[in-house]
Amino acid sequence: MVDRFFNPRSIAVIGSFREGYFGGYVMIRSLLKAGYAGSIFPVNPGYGEVHGIKVYPSLRDIPGATDVAVIMINARSVLPMITQCADRGIRCVVVVSDGFAERDAEGARLQDEMVLLARSLDVRIIGPNTAGVVNTANGLNPCPYEAGYYRIRQGVTAICAQSGMINPQAVTYPEMRFGVSKICDFGNKCDVDECDLLEYLAEDGETGVISLYLESIRNGRRFLESARKAATRKPVLVLKSGRTRDGAKASESHTGSLAVDDRIFDGVCSQAGILRLEQFRDIFEMPKIFAAQPLPSGNRVGILTVTGGVAVMAIDECARQGLSLARLGPGPADALESVFVGLGKNPVDIGPMMAALSNGFDLYPRMLNTLLEDENVDALFAVLWATPAGNVISRYVETYEDLKGRFRKPVVTWIYGPDAGAIAELGERLERCGFPVFDTPEKCIRALGLAYRYARIRVHGGGSGPVLIG
Amino acid sequence: MVDRFFNPRSIAVIGSFREGYFGGYVMIRSLLKAGYAGSIFPVNPGYGEVHGIKVYPSLRDIPGATDVAVIMINARSVLPMITQCADRGIRCVVVVSDGFAERDAEGARLQDEMVLLARSLDVRIIGPNTAGVVNTANGLNPCPYEAGYYRIRQGVTAICAQSGMINPQAVTYPEMRFGVSKICDFGNKCDVDECDLLEYLAEDGETGVISLYLESIRNGRRFLESARKAATRKPVLVLKSGRTRDGAKASESHTGSLAVDDRIFDGVCSQAGILRLEQFRDIFEMPKIFAAQPLPSGNRVGILTVTGGVAVMAIDECARQGLSLARLGPGPADALESVFVGLGKNPVDIGPMMAALSNGFDLYPRMLNTLLEDENVDALFAVLWATPAGNVISRYVETYEDLKGRFRKPVVTWIYGPDAGAIAELGERLERCGFPVFDTPEKCIRALGLAYRYARIRVHGGGSGPVLIG
Repeated sequence: MVDRFFNPRSIAVIGSFREGYFGGYVMIRSLLKAGYAGSIFPVNPGYGEVHGIKVYPSLRDIPGATDVAVIMINARSVLPMITQCADRGIRCVVVVSDGFAERDAEGARLQDEMVLLARSLDVRIIGPNTAGVVNTANGLNPCPYEAGYYRIRQGVTAICAQSGMINPQAVTYPEMRFGVSKICDFGNKCDVDECDLLEYLAEDGETGVISLYLESIRNGRRFLESARKAATRKPVLVLKSGRTRDGAKASESHTGSLAVDDRIFDGVCSQAGILRLEQFRDIFEMPKIFAAQPLPSGNRVGILTVTGGVAVMAIDECARQGLSLARLGPGPADALESVFVGLGKNPVDIGPMMAALSNGFDLYPRMLNTLLEDENVDALFAVLWATPAGNVISRYVETYEDLKGRFRKPVVTWIYGPDAGAIAELGERLERCGFPVFDTPEKCIRALGLAYRYARIRVHGGGSGPVLIG
Repeated sequence: MVDRFFNPRSIAVIGSFREGYFGGYVMIRSLLKAGYAGSIFPVNPGYGEVHGIKVYPSLRDIPGATDVAVIMINARSVLPMITQCADRGIRCVVVVSDGFAERDAEGARLQDEMVLLARSLDVRIIGPNTAGVVNTANGLNPCPYEAGYYRIRQGVTAICAQSGMINPQAVTYPEMRFGVSKICDFGNKCDVDECDLLEYLAEDGETGVISLYLESIRNGRRFLESARKAATRKPVLVLKSGRTRDGAKASESHTGSLAVDDRIFDGVCSQAGILRLEQFRDIFEMPKIFAAQPLPSGNRVGILTVTGGVAVMAIDECARQGLSLARLGPGPADALESVFVGLGKNPVDIGPMMAALSNGFDLYPRMLNTLLEDENVDALFAVLWATPAGNVISRYVETYEDLKGRFRKPVVTWIYGPDAGAIAELGERLERCGFPVFDTPEKCIRALGLAYRYARIRVHGGGSGPVLIG
């Protein structure tokens, strides 16, 4: 049933088609420009045509079968419309309209009534108060807000949230260097919720990692089961807010949901094998570590850096993330020391060598390989200095391309330097190659920490019994 | 004496002038392009001219008086050169050369010897193993690495570090929307250290806020005194790494300095009124809150947002930072509620109103003012949705311009939306107006937390006795 929301053969858009930045007019354009190939049926008695598509006076007038209806009308008119949807055989409804439980007690009553009605009619609802869903595989992007872009790069990360903050109108997806499989804003999640999505996305062949933003959990027991099952298949990352008393209270008025005690939620995460995120941007950034990199088989991190200071910060962060600094084996240590005095210890700071040797750069691939070949190293943090000069970018890219598939060890990279364009270009090219780049050293290590914790979840069998999380 | 390092009337550059990405050749160009107006004296017996400037065979051949010498020659040759500097009356020496305490025991001995020599000659040393200093007020940018840009926007933030990670070759200063007064990389800080800089910068009229990255403290008692005195004059922000055992060990080999126990350092910070930073980028970003905004007189935060989810996250972060969610006074609450139902409580989520009212945007300035006028609000966190359409950017900018100087309350802003260009433009324009913008909601709140803590330090008198930090 959830699949139909993401793969509708046809979609009815019920709302105003007045030109503007929000509503049916924008949604139809977004669907068209994103390349949605299914049928689009705009519904409104007051319009004849929108974006060259016929507008039907009512649902009854739609010629073909309809899989999904998106409703953007006044809250009070939503319930009768749901009945009409059911009459028309539409069992998947996205209620974009607001003015429900997030507004006031009256809205909450209306929402409860809507849920009862939908259940009696065997209709499933996403929302209300939602910006809807996206499926990059079929161009389904019914964004009700004008985002200015319409296609999102296809990839393996599914992003779901109890907030429109993940939808196209709120995120610079074109500038983000990763691909998305599906997006779902639960809104007030009166019906379809995180459990439905976890169960669906666990089986979804297009999705390799699930990233969730939650303020509340509707059903703790079911969440535990859904998350645990999903986590045995793919990483499940969760940012939960409303962690503090005031935050929880604000969350209630945001989506009308009751927040769950944060300590209880922590316990649930441990048992389910969920990876907790810390900050808003983590939702988008941390999944990258799982998109193309292998999981580490241990927690020993090798560091190859052009700057010693960043290595010190990274090592501090390793300790916070349950990672340790790898002690190099004697063979690799000797090999590195023979290149330049002082290199034979982790962190491997090649700054002095790069300054001293004119061919320092030629030795980079050898050092990277030596570190990755060391059986005492489980994961690698590389710090690169980008410059537009001297073919440096291409040489780094070639070095990384050569690594691809040769080691069962994750590599994360932080790029710095004086030239924002060079940093962006190198980042883009390395990520296209499958090597994630993060914009701070701390995020690199945090990502390795998540990869290590997930590796342990997999080893210790996330499927049954409590799972140890480092 | 420290002032002479930043305001030399003339500077001797001792090194190779071979074309390349590092060394004297680059340094001279950097000084010229940054607009340094003092005399530049390149010194090397093997060159006649560099960038159109005469190269002198030795220090003795320089015609005029010289305030500062920058040395970029082999470590073993540095000591005799320092003697020559002293002979020539040069008492300020920047030793860029590496191969000292950060390398090995022999280098450490050489460094000790250098210090004794310098003391006996009354010469002060910045470094060794440093990328040097910058003074944006006089174009002093003797960067030894090719950065591709040479001028840094002038502003009130001084940045000092035990690492070259803050110098132009490592930072995209042109893309950063804030101004710098001075930069100092201590390198191995064999002589000039954080205390010298704190004492100097505390009195420096160009500097309004001091941001430090430290791995070690040379003299705890003096540091406490210097920092305490500086903190009574201007905010002192410190990121200290080497917090963990492995991190501390790595720090020793990075700059050859012994790390200080982190708990002891925490105590020192509390006593001195130092604001501790958490992450690498904080060094550059957090000073912005002090550059143009007033300090808050309390910890009660008002939130004006277009998205409820971010408010919840922000409130969680408030709790972590010792801030609280303001409870609006009845007058302001009623005024807001009368605009749109549900607006009369903090966080003020204008998302539903913006979607419902076609003139929602016209009401924004009034709501912002109402919140800032409320005596129960000490600081404001604003979440703006940027779009290139409909003159939105200019209208936000006008609204902020109108706030300027009218309230003794800090305002921090997070901008989101689908268009990276619009986000950047609005951010740039608001910051030009003096309103800091941070790139995550959490950073906004963290910055307010620092402002609140510093306000308390000022009230409780950072100058004497232990200072309470929230």
